[in-house]
Amino acid sequence: MSKNFNKLLEKLKKINYKALYQNDFLLTWDKTQGELEAIFTVADTIRYLRENNISPKVFDSGLGISIFRDNSTRTRFSFASACNFLGLEVQDLDEGKSQIAHGETVKETANMISFMADVIGIRDDMYIGKGHAYQKAVADYVDEGFKDGVLEQRPTIVNLQCDIDHPTQTMADSLHLINEFGGIENLKGKKIAMTWAYSPSYGKPLSVPQGVIGLMTRFGMDVVLAHPEGYEVMPEVEEVARRNASKYGGNFTKTNSMAEAFKDADIVYPKSWAPFAAMEKRTNLYGEGDHEGIKALEKELLAQNAQHKDWACTEELMKTTKKGKALYLHCLPADITGLSCKEGEVDESVFNRYRIPLYKEASYKPYIISAMIFLQKIKNPEETLQKLADQNKPRLVK
Amino acid sequence: MSKNFNKLLEKLKKINYKALYQNDFLLTWDKTQGELEAIFTVADTIRYLRENNISPKVFDSGLGISIFRDNSTRTRFSFASACNFLGLEVQDLDEGKSQIAHGETVKETANMISFMADVIGIRDDMYIGKGHAYQKAVADYVDEGFKDGVLEQRPTIVNLQCDIDHPTQTMADSLHLINEFGGIENLKGKKIAMTWAYSPSYGKPLSVPQGVIGLMTRFGMDVVLAHPEGYEVMPEVEEVARRNASKYGGNFTKTNSMAEAFKDADIVYPKSWAPFAAMEKRTNLYGEGDHEGIKALEKELLAQNAQHKDWACTEELMKTTKKGKALYLHCLPADITGLSCKEGEVDESVFNRYRIPLYKEASYKPYIISAMIFLQKIKNPEETLQKLADQNKPRLVK
Amino acid sequence: MSKNFNKLLEKLKKINYKALYQNDFLLTWDKTQGELEAIFTVADTIRYLRENNISPKVFDSGLGISIFRDNSTRTRFSFASACNFLGLEVQDLDEGKSQIAHGETVKETANMISFMADVIGIRDDMYIGKGHAYQKAVADYVDEGFKDGVLEQRPTIVNLQCDIDHPTQTMADSLHLINEFGGIENLKGKKIAMTWAYSPSYGKPLSVPQGVIGLMTRFGMDVVLAHPEGYEVMPEVEEVARRNASKYGGNFTKTNSMAEAFKDADIVYPKSWAPFAAMEKRTNLYGEGDHEGIKALEKELLAQNAQHKDWACTEELMKTTKKGKALYLHCLPADITGLSCKEGEVDESVFNRYRIPLYKEASYKPYIISAMIFLQKIKNPEETLQKLADQNKPRLVK
Repeated sequence: MSKNFNKLLEKLKKINYKALYQNDFLLTWDKTQGELEAIFTVADTIRYLRENNISPKVFDSGLGISIFRDNSTRTRFSFASACNFLGLEVQDLDEGKSQIAHGETVKETANMISFMADVIGIRDDMYIGKGHAYQKAVADYVDEGFKDGVLEQRPTIVNLQCDIDHPTQTMADSLHLINEFGGIENLKGKKIAMTWAYSPSYGKPLSVPQGVIGLMTRFGMDVVLAHPEGYEVMPEVEEVARRNASKYGGNFTKTNSMAEAFKDADIVYPKSWAPFAAMEKRTNLYGEGDHEGIKALEKELLAQNAQHKDWACTEELMKTTKKGKALYLHCLPADITGLSCKEGEVDESVFNRYRIPLYKEASYKPYIISAMIFLQKIKNPEETLQKLADQNKPRLVK
Repeated sequence: MSKNFNKLLEKLKKINYKALYQNDFLLTWDKTQGELEAIFTVADTIRYLRENNISPKVFDSGLGISIFRDNSTRTRFSFASACNFLGLEVQDLDEGKSQIAHGETVKETANMISFMADVIGIRDDMYIGKGHAYQKAVADYVDEGFKDGVLEQRPTIVNLQCDIDHPTQTMADSLHLINEFGGIENLKGKKIAMTWAYSPSYGKPLSVPQGVIGLMTRFGMDVVLAHPEGYEVMPEVEEVARRNASKYGGNFTKTNSMAEAFKDADIVYPKSWAPFAAMEKRTNLYGEGDHEGIKALEKELLAQNAQHKDWACTEELMKTTKKGKALYLHCLPADITGLSCKEGEVDESVFNRYRIPLYKEASYKPYIISAMIFLQKIKNPEETLQKLADQNKPRLVK
Repeated sequence: MSKNFNKLLEKLKKINYKALYQNDFLLTWDKTQGELEAIFTVADTIRYLRENNISPKVFDSGLGISIFRDNSTRTRFSFASACNFLGLEVQDLDEGKSQIAHGETVKETANMISFMADVIGIRDDMYIGKGHAYQKAVADYVDEGFKDGVLEQRPTIVNLQCDIDHPTQTMADSLHLINEFGGIENLKGKKIAMTWAYSPSYGKPLSVPQGVIGLMTRFGMDVVLAHPEGYEVMPEVEEVARRNASKYGGNFTKTNSMAEAFKDADIVYPKSWAPFAAMEKRTNLYGEGDHEGIKALEKELLAQNAQHKDWACTEELMKTTKKGKALYLHCLPADITGLSCKEGEVDESVFNRYRIPLYKEASYKPYIISAMIFLQKIKNPEETLQKLADQNKPRLVK
């Protein structure tokens, strides 16, 4: 085995991450620094195996179940890739094709799909107050099912995006930063502007900005959250960011000026989202089945958005960043002015200049998910990784 | 290998079940006592392997094709789990995405999906007179295709529910009973009440009650079928039950009183279904494209249901069963009074008391399906099971 | 290993096909004679392995991604079978469930699904001028992604049907002919009638007739394209056919008489398609969102079709073929007079007489796709095939 692999394994051996085993990944702020670092390290290790045509198949059979309550390309394929690479077959719970509408409870579904499930990946980001609660409920119910002897094993849950956090995205973003800046220690003191940007569409989830301020404040970074008045995120998550900044020696500040956020930033993450309060209102309207109210709210929010078309990542604004060369991040797809819409989040020329790094940013997601599954299901990750490397089984016989 | 595994294998060696090989599983009453017992035994064996982290992968590759003509959670995941555990990848024939609507015949489809199919699982329970006939047709066509040299092998069919029987459900129910009562021989003389119960929804399939009376009469049980007048099941299946009872030393009786059925019962299975005659009428109306007729029939049936709201599995009724402690069965999801509907099949407190056994009951289904596939595809099941145990390949490397 | 396998391997060793490696399969006329012959040979080899229960699993894990922009049974299952047999899991990109509608570009999607994709199979045959261009774009974008370091490997593209060609169909048709006539050399001089036939449905793709005249002219055959006036195919493909005929010593002629085409034909391929010019017009109408125009065009085309109900493969016409026994081909499903429609492409008695050969024709498709993937992904196919045969791993443990 090469030096690179050995170095990663040595690094892993120094980290305390044992609490990941048999656990779920729901929110980054539930995890210790060591646990996050172990995930980054194992993600790099698994990527190394893939790039060197070595199979890391730890499951001879098994199911990775996906539940997507919203459309998805990237996350769906990332989850499928991660599962497949480790040996799990993906089985999608398409709620439209299931009997859930016929009165099945969450408790029942959670057990019924889990008799042979190793992992359950859930995306549920549409309604404020619902997504995380749903994931937590599934976690609790499979716990109960395992303790009651219904399930012979407890499947592990991976949050593929909820109303609060989007850990597989922000961990992939972070691994991209770690690689771009040459190490997690080099993120210390870097300024990142997590800013709202105009989009002609409505109701985009808050999980990315929330996830970013909740995670990037762990690395001693100078995290600035910028948005027009009225586009506040969840206060609890701002509180998490504030606490992190103080605990880990960074900063967390807020501004209503995109220009101020971009000024001398090392990294910018301009992206649209909906106001937290409005999304909470929408959840209630859906709960009441008030379709007129929903329509009215949509109209109102689109009008509100339209007042902030100047919140765009333009070439002019990019020039004001550190040496005019801040790293541009996005979870994709972006609303690109003149390409995917008339006026959007980012100038086409800016987007195109960063297209390759953006795609690389996305490329970390399957490895982050693989690492989460690996560390949550494998009792002795270090020995197992060593064994996989030693046995050196080719993924593709050539 | 442990004693438990050896005992199961010894038991299997004493059973005559060879006719399962290269055959289909469509109706339990097409099978001998030995064949059913072999399936129960192999299901337990495969469960043992799973619980001891031993891989039973007999297929290095291969397809398990599913055809679901109705929504499904449990059966879909059970089939996927069974296939995956043995090494088959599930490929769903989504008729909406296929060219079947464009004039493809059943004969053609059966052959076109089977070039590399090892198993075809079919659920077709909506129309009386159609589901079993469809499964039989697929079976005949792949037979023909194999004999004509079109198919290099003949895929085996597993009935995942038809208009007549629901063998993977009732076999799972039975394996649950066998385990709860400590052996198949202990079912002799036990009273099981298969009774209709009120549901606010309409047109529930008859395959469960029919499957139950057709199977449980094989174990020397005292099987009582109870329903309000007008909710008769298929007369042919009642005839099967009568014949079984006489042949295997049990009883089969009918009553129009739920109280009578519950009285001193060891096991109760209260569940809604539609009258056979009405479902036959519905099939004809669909055939004629008579949408007005269908609507009128639906209204009529809901009204008919509503006259029997007293057919519910209440705490009072449960008290009248053997020592007040009959085992409550259901194929799930149940209509739970006060939880999933205002008035339904069962009191919430009854359902909750039996939730864990109910989930365990469901947990047998993937193993029953595994066993059916195993015995229908593997020429020498005893040697193969011994080999799998000896080779002791971990399902999950830990 | 048996003689048959060795003979195939010897044959392969004499063919120059190295340019297939790391390449795509989009159009048959992009490929050399040697490359096509290598695919036929490897398809036969893989079929041999399958029929002798030997696993050709070269992928320990990996994804085969399918993109179907039209309904499909045969091609969907053929692709799934091919992928599964080689060790790839199929992951379908269902564009309705993805974020493509939310402004994602083709370039982005192509990269986002490819981080761990080995193969991408695409069917896009609906709009003239679109399908091939889309496949070419995906190919270019994954090329770019690989060169830019976004993708650690470049997935290979397989055309599962475009607006121009349908290579997996016509290669399967050809392999069927090779086997029926006892060798590719025996196709020389054989007359094949690729003729239009009446269908009550509208807008059938041109890719089959175009693919057939573009491929069969490579084998020194006497290829006749017959259709009513106004049902012309793409002129560029006719040009390909003309060039092939002259280069490879065959003939390519056109006629407006079905009788003339059938006269003394060794093979007939009667099948409906839409006029090229009308499909081009339709593409433009869709582009303009002109729904009234589309409806009017549909009506017009159905009326045009109806003038040619005499273009049918009847018993009378079959009698005029070589000894009255021409081999009847179809890509299925066919419009069968009196069975799937009142008047259609072929008499029921003709279709029934050829049902078994037709199903065999279809059975080659999974092997053709397997061979394309194998030769595009495996660096040393001959050594690898030898290794697979030597290791003799059973596909199904019996």
